[in-house]
Amino acid sequence: MTKNDPWRIGVAGLGTVGAGLLNLIAERPGFSPVGREVVVTGVSARSRSRPRPYDIAGLPWFDDPVALAASPDNDIFVELIGGSDGPAKVAVETALKAGKPVVTANKALIAEHGAELAALAEASGAPLLFEAAVMGGTPAVKMLREAMVGDEVEAVAGILNGTCNYILTEMEATGRPFAEVLAEAQRLGYAEADPTMDVGGFDAAHKITILAALAFGCAPTYAAAEVEGIAAIEPIDIRLAKDLGYRIKLVASAVKSAEGVQVTVHPALAPLAHPLAQAGGALNALFIQGRTIGRIFIQGPGAGAGPTAAAVAADIADVMTGASRPVFQLPAGRLKPFAPVNAKSQLGRAYIRLMVRDEPGVIAAVSETLAEAKVSIDSFLQKPVEDAGVVPIVLTTHAAPEEVILEAVRRMQGLAVMIEPPRMIRIARI
Amino acid sequence: MTKNDPWRIGVAGLGTVGAGLLNLIAERPGFSPVGREVVVTGVSARSRSRPRPYDIAGLPWFDDPVALAASPDNDIFVELIGGSDGPAKVAVETALKAGKPVVTANKALIAEHGAELAALAEASGAPLLFEAAVMGGTPAVKMLREAMVGDEVEAVAGILNGTCNYILTEMEATGRPFAEVLAEAQRLGYAEADPTMDVGGFDAAHKITILAALAFGCAPTYAAAEVEGIAAIEPIDIRLAKDLGYRIKLVASAVKSAEGVQVTVHPALAPLAHPLAQAGGALNALFIQGRTIGRIFIQGPGAGAGPTAAAVAADIADVMTGASRPVFQLPAGRLKPFAPVNAKSQLGRAYIRLMVRDEPGVIAAVSETLAEAKVSIDSFLQKPVEDAGVVPIVLTTHAAPEEVILEAVRRMQGLAVMIEPPRMIRIARI
Repeated sequence: MTKNDPWRIGVAGLGTVGAGLLNLIAERPGFSPVGREVVVTGVSARSRSRPRPYDIAGLPWFDDPVALAASPDNDIFVELIGGSDGPAKVAVETALKAGKPVVTANKALIAEHGAELAALAEASGAPLLFEAAVMGGTPAVKMLREAMVGDEVEAVAGILNGTCNYILTEMEATGRPFAEVLAEAQRLGYAEADPTMDVGGFDAAHKITILAALAFGCAPTYAAAEVEGIAAIEPIDIRLAKDLGYRIKLVASAVKSAEGVQVTVHPALAPLAHPLAQAGGALNALFIQGRTIGRIFIQGPGAGAGPTAAAVAADIADVMTGASRPVFQLPAGRLKPFAPVNAKSQLGRAYIRLMVRDEPGVIAAVSETLAEAKVSIDSFLQKPVEDAGVVPIVLTTHAAPEEVILEAVRRMQGLAVMIEPPRMIRIARI
Repeated sequence: MTKNDPWRIGVAGLGTVGAGLLNLIAERPGFSPVGREVVVTGVSARSRSRPRPYDIAGLPWFDDPVALAASPDNDIFVELIGGSDGPAKVAVETALKAGKPVVTANKALIAEHGAELAALAEASGAPLLFEAAVMGGTPAVKMLREAMVGDEVEAVAGILNGTCNYILTEMEATGRPFAEVLAEAQRLGYAEADPTMDVGGFDAAHKITILAALAFGCAPTYAAAEVEGIAAIEPIDIRLAKDLGYRIKLVASAVKSAEGVQVTVHPALAPLAHPLAQAGGALNALFIQGRTIGRIFIQGPGAGAGPTAAAVAADIADVMTGASRPVFQLPAGRLKPFAPVNAKSQLGRAYIRLMVRDEPGVIAAVSETLAEAKVSIDSFLQKPVEDAGVVPIVLTTHAAPEEVILEAVRRMQGLAVMIEPPRMIRIARI
């Protein structure tokens, strides 16, 4: 390859993002992001004949993505197949072993096998980039990998799943229950037919696992993430949280302490005035807390063919610059093993909603139970009686170890006045 | 230099940022942002003996920054002297001509001489990086230069001067006039003894000039920026704007149209719920509008020794990766000349405050004048009479060419009922 030859890319996977990338390149003849042209010299997908928004007839076809990864006819292998294992992983490994740069949007692959792939990449000197794996077109990976190297990151926290954020925003706007809003989101194409990865919090967990590795220089360790989705969130909690000055969001966070790193994805209450609370609809948003820099906030589209393809294109450009840096924050051989903290001992605040019988002594029973469990109350709100003599009580706690709050919830569940199990939602530590 | 040798940096200028950088490196022995160590092998400043928070006794001293830039004892020249011309410029030119990478925080230098320096840098293959020149520790430059290459930027707009933002925030919080808040900011060290660069909008103009060049691939052209500072903003305007649902901010923006590029810095009304309106105190904030990606918002500290030094360190790390890309969006030889638009013909909305006599027919006179000038009213608010029979009237217009709105203001100024000249403030196009 001489100084003015184009860079030849092979694209495996022609779903939404793959088609978006081909479109992006086709729409700009001579696309030269860093002064050199990019041309597609091979594509691969499950079906060659499936209708696509982009005509692939003129592009060399590979039935097998691994053969595309191994082909000497491309200089960069772009993996948009998806999935933590199977052909995506084999193809990426094949390219990296051959010293060929890899650009991928595959969050599961990086979250679950990032450390071993980084070792392969650094051994052969081939860049492995995955900007599109997190927050789509919003450059969270670049910020953590490149802009924060002069600082020490203490925490990252954000909204990393647009589907959940859309559903929660709609639930608040319309008062409708989760299942109804999810069904509508599926009809509109905002949620998958099988929504588990999104609404179960697993997609956000893949992403925050990757950000934690970049932030703290530890091996990405998906299994260490504590994950809770949004399926149990009810309209009444969204309403009561708002009465208390909060909005319920699916918050993904990674926090470093002396003990280790805690990576969590769970619904949490964010103060209404907080930027994370104000990122509505399908937006993604992220805070990065640096020891020296302080807080940086970034917000933007977290998905979509165009934005995600633009992130892939930015990674292709980065490869073309010849930059060589560790895949995560430290060289692969020096990545620290992930040291999880004991979640149960972490201090946090909580929102607790109780549905109790309308009878004398209820407040006394509840407050005594909390006092016995050593949970101190920050705010307490008894709402007017609802149908059938049910009284909603909602309270927020001061900070306490999570196990202490859970024990208090268990004790309250045992009270005779309790009509349904108490609902506990964490208050975001942001 | 072999693979494991440290990178040797020469630091010219030991003010706030220079001292911050030396501290950052000293606090982390073996600082190796991309797997290689960084060591300081030379410093230069105006006075060697001036008391500093960091001990420079052990570092090789250069009286002349140009000699430091030329010295073979450093691999990267870090210019933190400041000023668009003089020794900073000569030293940077010297380093670039010798093929030595340059990292600078000097916004005036890049905004006023960026194109010629980019040509020098690209001719010799030496990177020229200036993340710290804009938004301090918040990576606006990296986002535009690197993350947006796969998209077409349509506009950038933001709050780029922390001093002005602090003053406006304080004016709103306390109701005190500009001069008083400025004097306090000077006492507290938030504003310079000569505040002209900040409160006159010139500092923000340097920064938005740089961002415009990165966004649109045009030569940075400081002279083309239309600049208006915040000295004329009065507490009554801050109050009335809020009544109308807006907050007054110093907004720097660069917008591309078919006609060319418009770069402006002026006070403008941002809707209260808009993220730019919510960035208070000394924060900086920026929107990037991409054709494909949509809107990305970034917010963080725009100044300060620590954050700015961290940005310099990130640039040093980028040099160490060996990355080679155009200084601005396109190779220097292909940077487009800056094509300014005719500002007077641009459509915009405006807030207009009138102080009129308390007598019959005033509203009729005002509204007739606006109608004759072909300015259409969006909202109109007559406030209760103030002391001495003065009635404040505040109105917002629909979109009209700026020259049409200015003509309407001139006509209203001629009305007999007008007690003081009308005050026009633009409504931000964000």
